[in-house]
Amino acid sequence: MSKKIADRMQTISPFYVMALLQRAKQLEAQGRDVIHMEIGEPDFPTPPTIVSAGIELLQTGEVKYTSAVGLPQLRQAIANFYRQQYGVTVAPERIFITPGASGAFLLALGISLNPGDELLMADPCYPCNSNFATLFGAIPHALPVGAESLYQLSPAQIQQHWHSRSKGVLVASPSNPTGTLITPAALQAVIATVNALGGCFYSDEIYHGLVYGQTAATALQYSDDVFVINSFSKYFGMTGWRIGWLVVPEEFVAVAEKLAQNIFIATSTHSQYAALAAFAEDTCTELERRRTELAARRDFLYTGLLDLGFEIPAKPEGAFYIYADASRFTDDSFQFALDFLEQEAVAITPGRDFGSHNAHRHLRFAYTTTIDNMTVALQRLQRFINKG
Amino acid sequence: MSKKIADRMQTISPFYVMALLQRAKQLEAQGRDVIHMEIGEPDFPTPPTIVSAGIELLQTGEVKYTSAVGLPQLRQAIANFYRQQYGVTVAPERIFITPGASGAFLLALGISLNPGDELLMADPCYPCNSNFATLFGAIPHALPVGAESLYQLSPAQIQQHWHSRSKGVLVASPSNPTGTLITPAALQAVIATVNALGGCFYSDEIYHGLVYGQTAATALQYSDDVFVINSFSKYFGMTGWRIGWLVVPEEFVAVAEKLAQNIFIATSTHSQYAALAAFAEDTCTELERRRTELAARRDFLYTGLLDLGFEIPAKPEGAFYIYADASRFTDDSFQFALDFLEQEAVAITPGRDFGSHNAHRHLRFAYTTTIDNMTVALQRLQRFINKG
Repeated sequence: MSKKIADRMQTISPFYVMALLQRAKQLEAQGRDVIHMEIGEPDFPTPPTIVSAGIELLQTGEVKYTSAVGLPQLRQAIANFYRQQYGVTVAPERIFITPGASGAFLLALGISLNPGDELLMADPCYPCNSNFATLFGAIPHALPVGAESLYQLSPAQIQQHWHSRSKGVLVASPSNPTGTLITPAALQAVIATVNALGGCFYSDEIYHGLVYGQTAATALQYSDDVFVINSFSKYFGMTGWRIGWLVVPEEFVAVAEKLAQNIFIATSTHSQYAALAAFAEDTCTELERRRTELAARRDFLYTGLLDLGFEIPAKPEGAFYIYADASRFTDDSFQFALDFLEQEAVAITPGRDFGSHNAHRHLRFAYTTTIDNMTVALQRLQRFINKG
Repeated sequence: MSKKIADRMQTISPFYVMALLQRAKQLEAQGRDVIHMEIGEPDFPTPPTIVSAGIELLQTGEVKYTSAVGLPQLRQAIANFYRQQYGVTVAPERIFITPGASGAFLLALGISLNPGDELLMADPCYPCNSNFATLFGAIPHALPVGAESLYQLSPAQIQQHWHSRSKGVLVASPSNPTGTLITPAALQAVIATVNALGGCFYSDEIYHGLVYGQTAATALQYSDDVFVINSFSKYFGMTGWRIGWLVVPEEFVAVAEKLAQNIFIATSTHSQYAALAAFAEDTCTELERRRTELAARRDFLYTGLLDLGFEIPAKPEGAFYIYADASRFTDDSFQFALDFLEQEAVAITPGRDFGSHNAHRHLRFAYTTTIDNMTVALQRLQRFINKG
């Protein structure tokens, strides 16, 4: 690399799936019918109630800066949502509207991590999480997790790896890529452990709402001394609008405002007005319909992959991912994904995008496409495996 | 501060004007007629052509993630804009669409500054610039500038202050808060100096287009080895849309993409589609009309402040700010601004928001309000001064 490039860029990893995406586009340009199961984005459009609210604001032409912390009425709406959905009280002043969950991570880690601080997280996990820590000179410490803990960190594991430079612990539930949830009891125990150690606890709850057959607990049920990252992208179907939120502990309110002013100025105005409609009754009805559809897709893909010989030792209960152990077929899941795309025109994400622990044996399948498409994808997968 | 808060938050400064803004809101709630001349945002709505393009995209409901680097057609449109406006050729691959100029700064400094690196800039300048450097552990080094250099850095000054940890130089033209431009010859000389020193050159061009009676040169006219930060916010009237762009030197293209993927995922989709209309003929006509209006306001305010006894030794030729020396009236411009707001209900920005060099004697007036409003504001200012 050029000497001018900042050192951190040697540590920050690219998305390996991008190489697949690029090849998928080439194949599509050649007329191949590519089925996309690599994308972390629902295939549903934004609910019409939300779109209408966005258009209504745009029609005024008054798309001005808002306060750096977000629209007061949106912060209040999110506070109401916490009360109704989880029965917890969160002061609107602790809620910051951000440019997506990405902005929430920037803000949370920017105000709390010093260079050299360690941030504990699970391996596998969403790759950006460790890269956000690296951005600020902090050190991501990814601890291997497996099906026995539902791919989540345990209090014992945190205690074992905690040392003088440890600063915080990040838990994502439902997890990307595994789709598994931490149990409410485990979440409570992990938070108690981190609080006792004097660390910061970060709860990535961006897939909340997309949970099948159970409910996800928010970290706010167990402590006010937590950072909660959430987003309108996934459950609310607002990916391209780039809007999320961050809840901070009371003592971080002032610095979060100061940093948000400096690095964002504000979140998109029309996205904020649109998000006000995210909690409307019509929207909720539509989102529940979609959740039911996703649950059916999950069941279909889960059974289909098991039937083909993939191992999924912890049934995914949320998000829209299945993290399948492909040991029976390959010891190089990246090559498997490349070959599968090349030969059968189905795009999936290799395990290496999510860490290193057993990554070479795993593949992430996203059920962000229809059961019809997945039926074809599974047929192609069967044919591909049989050839191998 | 709590021990949990990251050390950098002690260095990152808040916007002092926020205290004024809050008080202004209280006064308005009490029924006072506050005139806002503190706001760095045009009072014009977004041009209707741009709004329509945004609405059109929203109506499809397909507000999905775009590529992290931005819509290909928007990158191409910006490349065309550089050719038409400045006669320079920029490869679209070097253009990254970002969440506002804020995102462009995050990206540019994140890929190029190591902790401990020094970034040279002018004092006074926009406060976020130094805070972005601090965010990454780099050290902002603000060099005092005055009217004799049009409040811009000179090659001699850069050479004098350059040492082993110096990494880059930031120039903003038109400057916020001074509204002054660096001359094309000076810009060329500064870039040549920085290139010869082996440093990175960052050109903040977010007020380009808002220039009266001359044209602003882009750094890209003199070198490809520069970072250029620009935005659709100011000239194009898209503040609340949060969309800007960054041009990077060829050798930074790969790392800029990698960092953008990780910290943004993408810029708002509807904002990008809307921005495609920013270069349409109808839009240009409207924007030129606004520029003419701003030029008239500049002349009005400039004359008015001089008549009252303020000193403005370098006539502002761009942006929508006048940085006035209030030495005749005060040695504490922050207190002056607070008292003026309290007694006369006019909000202006104290010099301390832009650095420390003679800041206590300066005030920034934004002509982002009508001449009618400014007429009243100047009457109130005269009365306030006479009382003092």
